Amino acid sequence: MNSDPRRIVAAKRDGHTLDPEELAGFVREYADGEVSDALAAAFLMAALLNGLDDGETLALTRAMVASGDTIAFDAIDRVTVDKHSTGGVADGVTLVFAPLAAALGLSVAKLSGRGLGHTGGTLDKLEAIPGLRTDLAPAEIERQVADVGCVVAAQSPSLVPADGALYALRDATATVPSIPLIAASVMAKKLAVRTDLILLDVKSGSGAFMKTPADAVALASACRRLAEGWGRDTRAAVTDMSQPLGDAMGNALDVIEAVEVLRGQRGGRLRDLSVWLVGRAAQALTGGSHEEGMRRAADALSDGSALDRFRAMVAAQGGDPRAVDDPLAVLPRAPVVIAIGSDRDGVLAAVDAEEIGSASAGLGAGRMRKGEPIDPAVGIVMRPKIGDRLEAGAPIGEVHARDRDSADAAAARVLGALTVADAAVEPPPLVHEWMG
Amino acid sequence: MNSDPRRIVAAKRDGHTLDPEELAGFVREYADGEVSDALAAAFLMAALLNGLDDGETLALTRAMVASGDTIAFDAIDRVTVDKHSTGGVADGVTLVFAPLAAALGLSVAKLSGRGLGHTGGTLDKLEAIPGLRTDLAPAEIERQVADVGCVVAAQSPSLVPADGALYALRDATATVPSIPLIAASVMAKKLAVRTDLILLDVKSGSGAFMKTPADAVALASACRRLAEGWGRDTRAAVTDMSQPLGDAMGNALDVIEAVEVLRGQRGGRLRDLSVWLVGRAAQALTGGSHEEGMRRAADALSDGSALDRFRAMVAAQGGDPRAVDDPLAVLPRAPVVIAIGSDRDGVLAAVDAEEIGSASAGLGAGRMRKGEPIDPAVGIVMRPKIGDRLEAGAPIGEVHARDRDSADAAAARVLGALTVADAAVEPPPLVHEWMG
Repeated sequence: MNSDPRRIVAAKRDGHTLDPEELAGFVREYADGEVSDALAAAFLMAALLNGLDDGETLALTRAMVASGDTIAFDAIDRVTVDKHSTGGVADGVTLVFAPLAAALGLSVAKLSGRGLGHTGGTLDKLEAIPGLRTDLAPAEIERQVADVGCVVAAQSPSLVPADGALYALRDATATVPSIPLIAASVMAKKLAVRTDLILLDVKSGSGAFMKTPADAVALASACRRLAEGWGRDTRAAVTDMSQPLGDAMGNALDVIEAVEVLRGQRGGRLRDLSVWLVGRAAQALTGGSHEEGMRRAADALSDGSALDRFRAMVAAQGGDPRAVDDPLAVLPRAPVVIAIGSDRDGVLAAVDAEEIGSASAGLGAGRMRKGEPIDPAVGIVMRPKIGDRLEAGAPIGEVHARDRDSADAAAARVLGALTVADAAVEPPPLVHEWMG
Repeated sequence: MNSDPRRIVAAKRDGHTLDPEELAGFVREYADGEVSDALAAAFLMAALLNGLDDGETLALTRAMVASGDTIAFDAIDRVTVDKHSTGGVADGVTLVFAPLAAALGLSVAKLSGRGLGHTGGTLDKLEAIPGLRTDLAPAEIERQVADVGCVVAAQSPSLVPADGALYALRDATATVPSIPLIAASVMAKKLAVRTDLILLDVKSGSGAFMKTPADAVALASACRRLAEGWGRDTRAAVTDMSQPLGDAMGNALDVIEAVEVLRGQRGGRLRDLSVWLVGRAAQALTGGSHEEGMRRAADALSDGSALDRFRAMVAAQGGDPRAVDDPLAVLPRAPVVIAIGSDRDGVLAAVDAEEIGSASAGLGAGRMRKGEPIDPAVGIVMRPKIGDRLEAGAPIGEVHARDRDSADAAAARVLGALTVADAAVEPPPLVHEWMG
């Protein structure tokens, strides 16, 4: 090392703006093991509290991208899109979006993560399908995009390894909630994969990391400024996560719900947001209005072409295609299923979505620490949305569990997470803001 | 662990005041290895930036004291004093203070540290004396206090081990400069040793950690409030470190200078501050005025009784007593000694004391990282003080070095650290503030 890396940390501690080269050098030295976890943790806390400006955030992101491989998709002649959600509850959009966009002739190349805490992870959901592999090599990813039009694979350890290390360190040191650090982490993974469009779904509300639309807009803006510094087209929607998006919170349960949407058999907010986002991707990449894009997407749900792409994607990744045509026959099922009955009459006014997500994770559908195994069969289904009428004793969903005690506990947590009012309640908007 | 220790760090990150029991538990878990260095570093940075209030600082200090042994001095019937300097350049006060206070009938029990960065360490200085041991067991320390009246020993690893671990972590993670963290670290070591008086010498200026008297007063106040919460008599002087206190910066060189003061052969600011502080200790512990105490101290320098106590202390700790009577004959000497000549006419107006201390460390007299070995023979002597006239070409001191190149480089650094003016300059006060 030429200079003492503590100098960088001291400068950020003292509120100075860091030189981009020096910051990049610090990240490189951390990735190489020359900067200790402790010094990096002190840096992260100083950056969280004193902030990073756009230039510093860009330098951090560039250094993370430079720490590993990148994917260029040079061999693909169709336009490619990468859709990313910042994480929510019952957020199965990727399972619908990828085949639906492919049905419209777009190519979707999506590297996903696993669930942590109250949020589910797309990889965990897909792996509920027997046989399905997500650990695809870059060449397999490129080939599947060319052949099928969509792929959802695991973030490879060779792509932005510095992000993997820094994210684990942030999780261990209470330094996650920083907009510049979140933006750098999100965008490094997107920028390492050269798609024509990055479409961000930034969640806001009780089930999201950003609790208010204003914070979500700030994060979306930071991500877009980063992409601009990189010359990559990035558009962002700030969408509602004040309640679970779909009805299912569990892994096999999520797949079942997505299949019903892809068959055109199920409406609701998960279907509507998926169609809305695919419409935006089509508008950006193939021209035409958003309304035209949404109409094409709706058609692809009703004519079977979206379901066809999902079947092809599952098969290409080694999964049992019967999961698409007869999911109840092949997906893992929990031994205990109990109904959740409403304990009150009234109108659903608010939902603590994080609490319901945590209740599902508590059943085994998610994990509280990275690396823990999950149970694909268990989870929660909760149907009412804000504004719906509840009737005491009437069923509002089910708990799928390993045993009766954990099922009862989860049902009680779901009821405790609901706020019920006497008067009518306006449903929240599906999309708060579009930054296109 | 009952609760997730990340919760404590998140609370401090978010600006909350921590529950004393929870903070103490966090320190305990760190000392036990259950909290990682990285999480503790994130805590330290959050505490540095968001602050710790008096209750939190007291809880931190109590937890550090509780992590190890304490020394009670139950068997000693004389009053005991512990003098502590926050660290400076050419600050040999402890070498003079301990035997001088003992000559006045006070007992001095002083646990010291090693030098780091631009500051010297009393242990390094004493160990320049052939044979002298500083790794004394608690029982040896108590016996020597009873027999000789003074002891200067190494901080034992069994006393406040949590402080040793936390200090090393702060040094490694750029989290040193926090008044509550410094106060907790200073006072935990003092509070673990039950003396009747804690006398703090808080340095302020270019050679100190606190660059302004206001910061030094803030640190002294924080230390005194901590001691109050513990029921221990603590008094503090904020003293000048805008220039090296004595003339010698090196380890054998420091001992030679201290011996000259103890023999009554040398005046100057090192002698004057030592007498001033011993006078304060005598006033606090035996009554009478500060002036009376200073007069008794001056007498003990001229009548040989202070030198006698130093000789007894050196001998009790296994050192060669000839170091006291003929230091040049037994102390290590550097092979190359060159004179430093002033390059200008004028009046010395300002000194970058940290730079001169670093130049001495660069010769080998100090260390930049904990655990590095030092060279007891090398160092710098620089005689002029602020307000003194300089004459171009006239010698202002010497460099003692291993070779000519390093000697020339150090001499150039000394000259570069001096600001010379044309008009007369008022010398800075020796003591900025007394908090007694």
